[in-house]
Amino acid sequence: MSQPDTAIETLAQRVVAGERRALAQAITLVESTRPDHRLQARALLERIGPAGSVVRRIGLSGTPGVGKSTFIETMGMRLVDAGHRVAVLAVDPSSTRTGGSILGDKTRMERLSRAPGAFVRPSPSLGTLGGVARRTREAIRLVEAAGYDTVLVETVGVGQSETMVAEMTDIFVLLLAPGGGDELQGVKRGIMEIADLIVVNKADGDMAAQAEATRSEYASALHLLRSRQGDAPGFPKALSASAVTGTGLDTVWAAVLELHRHRLEGGLLDQTRARQAVQAMRKALERAVMDLIRRDSGLRALLDDLEEQVSRGTLDPEEAAERVIADLRS
Amino acid sequence: MSQPDTAIETLAQRVVAGERRALAQAITLVESTRPDHRLQARALLERIGPAGSVVRRIGLSGTPGVGKSTFIETMGMRLVDAGHRVAVLAVDPSSTRTGGSILGDKTRMERLSRAPGAFVRPSPSLGTLGGVARRTREAIRLVEAAGYDTVLVETVGVGQSETMVAEMTDIFVLLLAPGGGDELQGVKRGIMEIADLIVVNKADGDMAAQAEATRSEYASALHLLRSRQGDAPGFPKALSASAVTGTGLDTVWAAVLELHRHRLEGGLLDQTRARQAVQAMRKALERAVMDLIRRDSGLRALLDDLEEQVSRGTLDPEEAAERVIADLRS
Repeated sequence: MSQPDTAIETLAQRVVAGERRALAQAITLVESTRPDHRLQARALLERIGPAGSVVRRIGLSGTPGVGKSTFIETMGMRLVDAGHRVAVLAVDPSSTRTGGSILGDKTRMERLSRAPGAFVRPSPSLGTLGGVARRTREAIRLVEAAGYDTVLVETVGVGQSETMVAEMTDIFVLLLAPGGGDELQGVKRGIMEIADLIVVNKADGDMAAQAEATRSEYASALHLLRSRQGDAPGFPKALSASAVTGTGLDTVWAAVLELHRHRLEGGLLDQTRARQAVQAMRKALERAVMDLIRRDSGLRALLDDLEEQVSRGTLDPEEAAERVIADLRS
Repeated sequence: MSQPDTAIETLAQRVVAGERRALAQAITLVESTRPDHRLQARALLERIGPAGSVVRRIGLSGTPGVGKSTFIETMGMRLVDAGHRVAVLAVDPSSTRTGGSILGDKTRMERLSRAPGAFVRPSPSLGTLGGVARRTREAIRLVEAAGYDTVLVETVGVGQSETMVAEMTDIFVLLLAPGGGDELQGVKRGIMEIADLIVVNKADGDMAAQAEATRSEYASALHLLRSRQGDAPGFPKALSASAVTGTGLDTVWAAVLELHRHRLEGGLLDQTRARQAVQAMRKALERAVMDLIRRDSGLRALLDDLEEQVSRGTLDPEEAAERVIADLRS
């Protein structure tokens, strides 16, 4: 994939022209950690220019079993049918060791993957959490440049990955399954606070009543949290829906649109994106500084010696870190 | 809580004597980020000395709704009744913004919290992921010094927090609820790989058959993964149990003991702990280096200028980070 400048220029043009294969190739390029690929990725992103501000970036999270894939597929198909261009990107921090879910991403969202107005990208297979964040941010810029007006960034779990995705999207949706007080207790306030919209899925058949009860419980819980200053009234809010029957999906989408429009028009969207960019810079800096230390031969030797003592249990990890710092300052 | 050296010495003695109030106070001290408290915490940990190697450190994870609290309470009570001393520590990375679950930790594990042979500590309420890791590592040293022979470190979710807890424990247990192929698909291979033991909970009443089916599915999935070199034969393994009826809990505990003994006797336990300590040191170093940069006035000014540009969208976050690095090196 090593390419001269003209090839990068061509790739950029093809991405902007909306060619799916070029887009897939460009994302593969930004996902690579090879230094020559990084330089090419930087050149590509420069040619593509800064991100537009009217594209909707929506983060979506839900633990296994809530029907997240079905929800994204059904919602995505509706948007595509309504003339939208929808990109789905996945963030899977648990794949930092080995990559991907066991049964693989390929069997998921089959219809949406084949729809001409949609672009579904599986989770990148390797990398640190910081690396995944950078690559996902860059992938967002690429799909936006390719003309997708709605970017769904999906993630799994109730931990750090949600915070990361919330830090690169405009609106964060938390998908839940119908369930009692146990679940209410289990959802941590940190996640409740980043969620703009809680959607209780599977509100169909036997589960409809339970879904409504769960929605009501979460609506109550959301009232305990303070709304974001200047945000659209009534948000964060809890809705129920069924990705299988389609019930409630129009309401969910209307809520997303209402909130996005409010934030765009009131300036909150630009503020948020500015803050997110600064945060991304700080993370990038952290990574780069540590690389720098590891490349200094004197520091590397000190590190090796201290690590030896720490690994034998004769030196406390925190104490060791402080000795490196003392050396850096001297 | 500012205390002279003699007070720290007294606190250390009381912790080692197994006084619960002193232990609680010591953990509060290591949880504090105040610089004077950090110095005292360091002094306290030095007096207490290095961690012993025969204590069992067990990580336990499970998404909301799997019955994790009930499982820990029931299992913990059995161990206490059998003469063990059990400490339960919680890691909740989603609380980095606001702290704690909505309904609070206090209503959880009521019996175990009151048992004389047990010590249950709720999740610390504030801090970064790195800070939470450090404090939990230090809390482990304190409860071990206080004579607890079994330390359960519980966490929530399927993301980064599991990796963190796996990095400070000897054995990692993943708790699941009965469920079909959907769940199998949802559990990511990264988590499957850090799990030494998968326990399908709620194997009782109507759910018993489904629990066995789920257990069997996970057992099959585990066979797809390579065993850790030199590890006890048959691990990782999938079991089923019911925290409510007690079915299967003896088998689960026997498996934990078998694996721990094998790793201890074969040297794998010491190797793992050595590697974990080095990893902790690297994380501590990362945090400290960034603190250092932020305290240099020249670098701080450059950072401020670049952050201004990044926030206006005229400079790419990665590019900005590289400019700081260039300045550091010149």
